Amino acid sequence: MADDYELLMIPGPTNLPDQVREALGRPQISHRVSKFKGLVGRISEGLQALLMTSQPVLTLTSSSTGAMEAAIVNLLSPDDPVICVDTGKFGNRLGKIAEVYGARVHWLKVERGHGVSEAELGEACAIIRPKAVLMVQNETATGVSQNVAALSEIARSYKALSVVDAVSSLGGYPLQMDLWGLDAVIAGSQKTLMLPPGLGFVAFSERAWEAAAESKMPKFYFDLTKARNSLEKGGETPYTPNTSLFVALEVVLNLIWEEGLEQRWERHHRLARATRAAMQALGLSLFAAEDVLSDTVTSVTSPVASGELTKRVREEHQIIIAGGQDELKDKIFRIGHMGTCQLEQVRQTVQAVAAVLIDMGYACDPAAAVKAAEEAY
Amino acid sequence: MADDYELLMIPGPTNLPDQVREALGRPQISHRVSKFKGLVGRISEGLQALLMTSQPVLTLTSSSTGAMEAAIVNLLSPDDPVICVDTGKFGNRLGKIAEVYGARVHWLKVERGHGVSEAELGEACAIIRPKAVLMVQNETATGVSQNVAALSEIARSYKALSVVDAVSSLGGYPLQMDLWGLDAVIAGSQKTLMLPPGLGFVAFSERAWEAAAESKMPKFYFDLTKARNSLEKGGETPYTPNTSLFVALEVVLNLIWEEGLEQRWERHHRLARATRAAMQALGLSLFAAEDVLSDTVTSVTSPVASGELTKRVREEHQIIIAGGQDELKDKIFRIGHMGTCQLEQVRQTVQAVAAVLIDMGYACDPAAAVKAAEEAY
Repeated sequence: MADDYELLMIPGPTNLPDQVREALGRPQISHRVSKFKGLVGRISEGLQALLMTSQPVLTLTSSSTGAMEAAIVNLLSPDDPVICVDTGKFGNRLGKIAEVYGARVHWLKVERGHGVSEAELGEACAIIRPKAVLMVQNETATGVSQNVAALSEIARSYKALSVVDAVSSLGGYPLQMDLWGLDAVIAGSQKTLMLPPGLGFVAFSERAWEAAAESKMPKFYFDLTKARNSLEKGGETPYTPNTSLFVALEVVLNLIWEEGLEQRWERHHRLARATRAAMQALGLSLFAAEDVLSDTVTSVTSPVASGELTKRVREEHQIIIAGGQDELKDKIFRIGHMGTCQLEQVRQTVQAVAAVLIDMGYACDPAAAVKAAEEAY
Repeated sequence: MADDYELLMIPGPTNLPDQVREALGRPQISHRVSKFKGLVGRISEGLQALLMTSQPVLTLTSSSTGAMEAAIVNLLSPDDPVICVDTGKFGNRLGKIAEVYGARVHWLKVERGHGVSEAELGEACAIIRPKAVLMVQNETATGVSQNVAALSEIARSYKALSVVDAVSSLGGYPLQMDLWGLDAVIAGSQKTLMLPPGLGFVAFSERAWEAAAESKMPKFYFDLTKARNSLEKGGETPYTPNTSLFVALEVVLNLIWEEGLEQRWERHHRLARATRAAMQALGLSLFAAEDVLSDTVTSVTSPVASGELTKRVREEHQIIIAGGQDELKDKIFRIGHMGTCQLEQVRQTVQAVAAVLIDMGYACDPAAAVKAAEEAY
C-alpha cells in the first residue's frame, strides 16, 4: 500500500484521516434498526451546526452533482425563469440541470477567474425577475470565492430564491446559512469533509420548503420532501443509504468539533495564504482576481502546458495536483488545500511543482517559495 | 467492535468479507488519473461477465433505487404506456418511478407471494401494447423469484422492452442478459455483491440503447448516454464516483471468480433449500408459492407478530432478520441468505429464531430444524 500512496492536492477528493479509514472498514450494519436511525439523526444535527441552520440537512447517497439536481428539481417548475451565475464548470452545471428539467435559464456568464459583481446581478434580477439565482460559493474550476451573503441578499430583494453550491467550501470557509438568508445550500462528502465521494447534502430555508411544496419538476430518488419526512419520522432515509459513509461522517463531524469550526476556517485561510505566497515567490500569477481568492483551492496561470506539469508532478513526486478544465485546459493548474491539509503538505507540493517547472525550463527558486509559504502561514 | 457485531441475515445490506473491509479502508485515490480509469474499465468488464452481456455495464454512485430511476428515465418518454408487474414493494417501485416521470402505467397487481403468470402478462400486453414491461427477478419484499427469461420473451413478442430489477438476485441466481434477451438489467452493491450500499448498476441491450436515443424524460445525474460516453472515452464517469466502493468492487469481483459464478449460484440455491427445510421443520409455512421460491431470501408466514420476533432475535442473539413491509407488516419474516453467507450462518439463524419462537409460546423443535437444514444443504 505504501508504494501506491499518493498525496492528493486536488480540489477533491481529498486525503482521508486514519480515523475515517478505520470507520470505513467496520462491519456492515443494517439501515433499518434503531442504532442506525440514531446515527442519521445525529448526523443531521451535526450538519445543521456545520451549515449554521435550524433547518434539517438531508444526506443523499449520490455525489454532489446529485445533490445539485435535488436542489433544482425540488424548488423549481418547468418554465420558471432562473439566473445562473456561470463562473465556471460548476456554476454552469447548476444552470444546465435547471435547463434539462425545463426551466428558462438566463446565463450570467462571468469572466473566468472572477465572481459576479453585485451590480451585475442586481441589473439582471431587475430585468428577469427570476424565481431563483443559482451560484457557487467556491468555483472549483477557477479557484474563485463569491460573497454569497451579499449575492443572496440581492436575490432576496427581488423575491428570488438563492441556491448556493458550497460543495468545495463547506467546512473550509465561513458559511452561515440562516444568518445570510441562503435558501438552498448544497454540499458533498469528498472535499473539506475528508470522506470518499458518495454523499451529497442539501438544506432548504423555510421559503425554499414553501417553494418545494409547489414544485412541478419530476423527482423520485431525489425527492427531498420524502427525505425530510423519513428523517423526521425517526432518522430514516427513503432508500437504502450508504451506511459506511454515514458511519464515517459522524467520525468526521467529531474531528471538526475537536479542531473547532472557526479554527478550521482559519487553518484553511492560512493554507491558502501560504500557497498563494509560494506561487507568487516562484514568479507565477494567481489566476483568480485578488478580491475573490478561494481559501480551499488556488488556481495558478501556468508558464508551461499544465497537463504535462501535473503529470510529471504525479509521476515524479507522487503528488496529485489538478490542471485546468475545458477552456482552461493546459492554461492553469490548481492546488487544493483542504480537509486534512497542513502546512507540510503545501511545502511538499510547492517543492514538487518548482522542481518540475525548473526541469521544464522555467527558472525559479524553490527555497524562496517554501520560505514565502512559511511566512505567509 | 466485537461487542457491536451483528450478523446480517436480512435481504441486504449483507455482511462484508474481510478483504472488502480492508479495501474500503485504503487511502483515497483521485478519480481523474489513469490508475482509476483502468479500474473503471476493469469493473465494467467484470460486471459484463457477471450479467453475461456484451453491453457496457454502467456503475452509478447511488443506491439501487437510483439505478432503477436511471433505467426508466433513459428508456421512456412521458405518455409512454408501460406495464408494471407489481409483485411487492420493489416491483411496485419501478412503476411508481415511471408514473412520476409521466408514463402511463398499467398495474398488473400480483397476489403477494406469487409471480405473474406468463398467460396474464401476455393478455395484458395484447391489450395495452406497452413500450416496456417493468419487473423484478427477485421480489425482496416477498421472497419471490420470477422467470424473467420467459417473461421478457413475452414482452419481446409484443415489441415491448423488458426492464428487469435484479438488485437482490444478481450474483446469487442465474441471469444471462444477452441469451435471455433482457433489455435493461438493474442491480446494486449491497446484496449478493457483499459491498456497502452506494453503487447501482445498469446495462441496456442494443434495442434499449435505440430507445434511449429517443427518450424524452428529463435526466442529468442519471443520464446513461453521458455515462456510457465517459466510460468509452477511457474509463471515466461523468460525475465524481464513489472511488472507495469502486476499489472494493474489484475485490468482490475477484472473490466471485475465485469461487466460480456457477458454484456461487449453487451455494445460494443450497442455502435457500437449507433455510426452507429448517423453517418447515419448525412447522412454519413458506410465504412464497412453491414454484417461485427465491434463492436469496426466504419469506415465512409468522406464527407470532413478526415485528416482536425480529426485535428479540436481534436483541437476544445479535442476528438481524427482516419483518414484513407495508401490508405484510407483522405477518411474515424474511431471512436473507446471500453474499458471504454459509450453512453455519443459516444454522445460527435457525437456532435463534426457534429459541425466540419457543419463548413467545410457539412450540417447535430447534434441533430437528437444524438437522433438516443440514440435510437439505
